[in-house]
Amino acid sequence: MALRAALRGLLSCSSHGRLCASSTSFSQRNNSSSANLKVDHDQTTGVAVMHMQSPPVNSLSLDFLTEICITLEKLEMDKGCRGLIITSSQPKVFSAGLDILEMYGKSPERCGEFWKAVQEMWLKLYGSNMVTIAAINGSSPAGGCLMSITCDYRIMADNPRYSIGLNETMLGIVAPFWFKETMVNTVGHRNTEISLELGLLYKPAEALNIGLVDQLVPEDQVLSAATQTMTKWLAIPEHARQITKSMMRKSTIEKLRSNREADIQNFVNFITKESIQKSLRMYMEMLKQKKA
Amino acid sequence: MALRAALRGLLSCSSHGRLCASSTSFSQRNNSSSANLKVDHDQTTGVAVMHMQSPPVNSLSLDFLTEICITLEKLEMDKGCRGLIITSSQPKVFSAGLDILEMYGKSPERCGEFWKAVQEMWLKLYGSNMVTIAAINGSSPAGGCLMSITCDYRIMADNPRYSIGLNETMLGIVAPFWFKETMVNTVGHRNTEISLELGLLYKPAEALNIGLVDQLVPEDQVLSAATQTMTKWLAIPEHARQITKSMMRKSTIEKLRSNREADIQNFVNFITKESIQKSLRMYMEMLKQKKA
Amino acid sequence: MALRAALRGLLSCSSHGRLCASSTSFSQRNNSSSANLKVDHDQTTGVAVMHMQSPPVNSLSLDFLTEICITLEKLEMDKGCRGLIITSSQPKVFSAGLDILEMYGKSPERCGEFWKAVQEMWLKLYGSNMVTIAAINGSSPAGGCLMSITCDYRIMADNPRYSIGLNETMLGIVAPFWFKETMVNTVGHRNTEISLELGLLYKPAEALNIGLVDQLVPEDQVLSAATQTMTKWLAIPEHARQITKSMMRKSTIEKLRSNREADIQNFVNFITKESIQKSLRMYMEMLKQKKA
Repeated sequence: MALRAALRGLLSCSSHGRLCASSTSFSQRNNSSSANLKVDHDQTTGVAVMHMQSPPVNSLSLDFLTEICITLEKLEMDKGCRGLIITSSQPKVFSAGLDILEMYGKSPERCGEFWKAVQEMWLKLYGSNMVTIAAINGSSPAGGCLMSITCDYRIMADNPRYSIGLNETMLGIVAPFWFKETMVNTVGHRNTEISLELGLLYKPAEALNIGLVDQLVPEDQVLSAATQTMTKWLAIPEHARQITKSMMRKSTIEKLRSNREADIQNFVNFITKESIQKSLRMYMEMLKQKKA
Repeated sequence: MALRAALRGLLSCSSHGRLCASSTSFSQRNNSSSANLKVDHDQTTGVAVMHMQSPPVNSLSLDFLTEICITLEKLEMDKGCRGLIITSSQPKVFSAGLDILEMYGKSPERCGEFWKAVQEMWLKLYGSNMVTIAAINGSSPAGGCLMSITCDYRIMADNPRYSIGLNETMLGIVAPFWFKETMVNTVGHRNTEISLELGLLYKPAEALNIGLVDQLVPEDQVLSAATQTMTKWLAIPEHARQITKSMMRKSTIEKLRSNREADIQNFVNFITKESIQKSLRMYMEMLKQKKA
Repeated sequence: MALRAALRGLLSCSSHGRLCASSTSFSQRNNSSSANLKVDHDQTTGVAVMHMQSPPVNSLSLDFLTEICITLEKLEMDKGCRGLIITSSQPKVFSAGLDILEMYGKSPERCGEFWKAVQEMWLKLYGSNMVTIAAINGSSPAGGCLMSITCDYRIMADNPRYSIGLNETMLGIVAPFWFKETMVNTVGHRNTEISLELGLLYKPAEALNIGLVDQLVPEDQVLSAATQTMTKWLAIPEHARQITKSMMRKSTIEKLRSNREADIQNFVNFITKESIQKSLRMYMEMLKQKKA
């Protein structure tokens, strides 16, 4: 909780503009790590690799989201960092998505705070000037899939036990419009419609087939393939690439940026309903039984 | 004409909101039928099957559209009905589409009345809270294709003598913007452009290939496959699925809902032109010669 | 320069409406040619073939764009011309795209004049009432690709030495929003995003695969295949086809038409930057070295 309290100011600050001044600088640094993130920043290539290591499954709690946002902001402001690879240090999972515990039995204020952090991560990733590549070395449901589709390119481990998708509907909750639009921009309207209505999770081969990921490689080559692809992307004239990326994404980003408060209110009203709380409780009990 | 007169009030009422109160209730009913529709409603599964049986080819006349709209409204209001399968009882055809006789030699008022019913059917189907599946057991041109693409899922008989598509252009008429947007939402912009400009009809395999239908099965298994698929859809948390469906479709629906009168006027002005009337006459004569 | 001066009035006139009166008529003519264009107009079929013959690689200079616009306007106004095939008389290239010399070391006024002509060509082609087919018998980068994707249909020579794509980013410049939207309307959002950010050029087989071209044929059959396809398109009821085409494209066209001045200013500000001028100089030097 201490970390979160300390970082609140930064989050609210950065929510008003893409970047805001920070007193921290790590331009001389090669590596950094916070509780749940390990960042390897290779100064010679300008590429940072962000390893998510929040046990057991990189669930996106408010604390973890806050750490991610701070790291993203620092990297974004660091002129020596031109590319970002996001991957997982946890076995078999990229990220399990939004932490259900943050949505169950919490006050409206706390739910709103949580949702604001989810928005913030999406805004930072989808609007990043860096080249962003998701090295998806495990399952990637819901919020994990969202992180992946905000990136410029997705490489997934070709392991049929893994899956990826925006499966919120299966939990009885609803992906908001900006999850939906990111998905439409990736796999088109019809794939998004059927995928979101059924809460589908796709095996790697299926995900490749509909364009939800761009490339499959053997599990032990995900990070090296991401590094190779990054080299190719960093060879592109940078300014033109950045303006082009912004042109492709700005209308979607603007739609959330100008509706953040209403979107938070919408989420809070929905998630605090008794019926939805009941759905979440049933889902958590199902998860417990699976483990037992 | 008596049926139509009796139902006019309902149609105009329902055109202002999604649902309006009706004194009729058939929550205890298992089956119902009007002149040209047979509805089998299985109360245990919550699935209704609507068989179109308007000889010879389920052409969408004003009377038939009115029947369909009333049936859809009743099912929509019936809490015991959660899924709707639409299929045909006529051999070799799902629906031949809008009845040309309703567009030829008719007064502007009558043409406007007809078009309002077409709008109403589209609004009810595309915005339905039920899971809707088209069991396409025959050819499905023009308005028949429109009915199909308003559904959540399309299963077609794998018979190369059947075809499906928005082929209005071949008749010299123009699919309105909401036909177009439903098509874009299904097969994307480029497929829609080439398909509408050329008035293309697709064989089942081609339709599957561009995503115009979701699944092909042998002709005698269309309905059973639809029933199986429905079971899968009905297992999804209902409230979340409905909100998601609405999120995917509401901007398209809103565009027509807020422009119905202008869209009617546009259709009436176009269809009553002498040149268009001549096209329709030629088309009908061609059809007669084909039969002879 | 004389040609350009003579034609300035026409360009500015046509920029305010789709068509404006011209005193020239060539309805009795079978063939015409200006310095860099040869037009074969077959009065019996109503099909004009526009051969680009501006050595060495059909670069789109201000003069050449002006010639193309005048020809397009004349054909558009000629009721005897219903279809247009665009092809190249230069070996191995359809068009190399916008002439870099028009963007390097020029005054802001001149750059603005050039960009206005690029806009004009796009407006005339993308909004044409004629059936337009690109017979792509050579490489077609950048502006050459733009010309191709404004057409109703694209047939490309199946020669793996040729390529096609909006590769502006590789030159350090940025495709404007209307290039982008034409591309999205052709190959979808995700293909456009990755294609524009990386400045990709596609081999014919790859281009077919993502839908950037519609058909591949042996190199010596490009024009005959285009002629055959044209026959099919001209058999479609014309008025309905034209209205449908307009419906599919008008929102994109309107977006540029109502923002031409701002778009010109945006281009001029960008292209006259010292950093961009430096990029262009480096690119031209690279081209020279390639030749030597």
